[in-house]
Amino acid sequence: MSRPLAPDPETCRDPDGLLAASLIEAAERRLRPVLAPTPLVACSRGGWLKLESLQVTGAFKVRGAYNALAAQIERGDRRPVFAASAGNHGLGVAWAARRLGLPATIVVPTSASPGKIAGCRRLGARVVTAAEPVEGCATLAARWAAEQGGRFVHPFDDPEVIAGQATLGLELVATRPDVVVIPVGGGGLAAGVGSVLRRRGVRVVGVQAAGSDGVRRALAGEAAPSATMTLADCLRVAVPGRLSLPLCAAVLDDVVVVDDDEILRAMASLALEDRVVAEGAGAAAVAALGRVSGRRVVAIVSGGNLEPAVLARAAASAA
Amino acid sequence: MSRPLAPDPETCRDPDGLLAASLIEAAERRLRPVLAPTPLVACSRGGWLKLESLQVTGAFKVRGAYNALAAQIERGDRRPVFAASAGNHGLGVAWAARRLGLPATIVVPTSASPGKIAGCRRLGARVVTAAEPVEGCATLAARWAAEQGGRFVHPFDDPEVIAGQATLGLELVATRPDVVVIPVGGGGLAAGVGSVLRRRGVRVVGVQAAGSDGVRRALAGEAAPSATMTLADCLRVAVPGRLSLPLCAAVLDDVVVVDDDEILRAMASLALEDRVVAEGAGAAAVAALGRVSGRRVVAIVSGGNLEPAVLARAAASAA
Repeated sequence: MSRPLAPDPETCRDPDGLLAASLIEAAERRLRPVLAPTPLVACSRGGWLKLESLQVTGAFKVRGAYNALAAQIERGDRRPVFAASAGNHGLGVAWAARRLGLPATIVVPTSASPGKIAGCRRLGARVVTAAEPVEGCATLAARWAAEQGGRFVHPFDDPEVIAGQATLGLELVATRPDVVVIPVGGGGLAAGVGSVLRRRGVRVVGVQAAGSDGVRRALAGEAAPSATMTLADCLRVAVPGRLSLPLCAAVLDDVVVVDDDEILRAMASLALEDRVVAEGAGAAAVAALGRVSGRRVVAIVSGGNLEPAVLARAAASAA
Repeated sequence: MSRPLAPDPETCRDPDGLLAASLIEAAERRLRPVLAPTPLVACSRGGWLKLESLQVTGAFKVRGAYNALAAQIERGDRRPVFAASAGNHGLGVAWAARRLGLPATIVVPTSASPGKIAGCRRLGARVVTAAEPVEGCATLAARWAAEQGGRFVHPFDDPEVIAGQATLGLELVATRPDVVVIPVGGGGLAAGVGSVLRRRGVRVVGVQAAGSDGVRRALAGEAAPSATMTLADCLRVAVPGRLSLPLCAAVLDDVVVVDDDEILRAMASLALEDRVVAEGAGAAAVAALGRVSGRRVVAIVSGGNLEPAVLARAAASAA
């Protein structure tokens, strides 16, 4: 029997423009025995919160990483993996690599959160810091992967990574939302989750951080922004992906942009009214809730890894 | 058909010394359609966390309050309810009273957390502040209930309140723990949850805050302490109950005492490693984890309502 091929980014979409349902079904089969569904709780601002902050590693990214690595192994490919990440993707790849027995190297910007770097190391990954923005780290990681016979795992522009994130969409449809609000950086989460939701007729609203609204601008035909520093550091992606962008175009009904003040207030209300620790990107969807209407609106709290000083600042801002 | 009588604290225990199984079954029947089970997640310190911080109102107390009020109505008794509380019991009674259509009065010490007071008001309760410790507030609330034809709902020393807390034990046994660590103030949570666990052969370890370890002292035959101020303000109970104390004696295998430094460190690690906001009492069981051994240990994070300044302090302590 011949081994399956890696899905081709050029042909991994179904005729409806969404990520192939077969890729999402395969991801669900791989992830379900390994990752428990995350909780859905009522939000003090109205609507509901999907708590990927309580996901293993503290963020949704482990879904895509685990699916990509497990699929690789199913193809008989046990190459070491390389990733670049300011945090959550690195944690996800490190966790999945350890679980699946693959060596992992994570290239992180020197500016990355020390907590996330320490977390990658604790998970057994080799961590290399580089004085580069995350895009430069990705170039390095891809080059080292090529030189050392490894596989570069893109944080969002990969069919299997996006299919892994789509499993979150399957958990959501079981809770019968009519609108889901999704933080958008590179667009991988929205591309995957949105592919599931769209097929079920659920409205999909993306949220971007002001100054890092590359997907919104690309969809509107505007020039790409220089991704500025934002509280939602995980959303700081200048250029959306070659695969994630057309998928975002197919799934997003609307894109809302929130600023750092709104994100900080959402972090504070999540912590103090909803008892949920959310990082900036994780709070972004909640920050947008006031501008989204629906019968049953779910905001994805995409992650909860943040520096002590940021949490202290959010809490103090409410005191 | 005659109406059922309120359970008698003197006779509400089964021959095994534990809270009557029939009371727990009735509580489960009343609560299950109203309160969803709370999540269980892995803890970064090892073991598992039962997140009552994500319970409606942010604490387990609503279980006992709802059961007490729903049982009262089943007896054809629609008297207004009165409670005294520095916080979570008041929130629980206010929530249950609104849901069940009973007027509620909560007497709170002037020292109570402003956030919890505001929460009770938002839930439609009449809130009266009194320059008394919570024991004095209870005396006032009981007197007003008697004068105004109302019912006083004790925060822990009531068979139906304890039976409501026991429903948390039913959720726990479904997750097959071998040890459960429970914060103990007045002992109502331990009495109820422990009654369920003990019947299933699960070990029960209580945790008290240093200076407020009235249950440990009473069980050891020592004099009652004057309950001192502690970060775990919900555990600040000087005198355990007439019903809760013998139940604690029947269910507790051990009692661990933790101090404020340990509680603050547990709050910080819960927030930053586990992305969970826990109040002092909620963090106490986690603070004790290092002193409890077992194959599958679950710590009950009993609540997550805390003042912004306390969360800021915990986060800053980790910075």
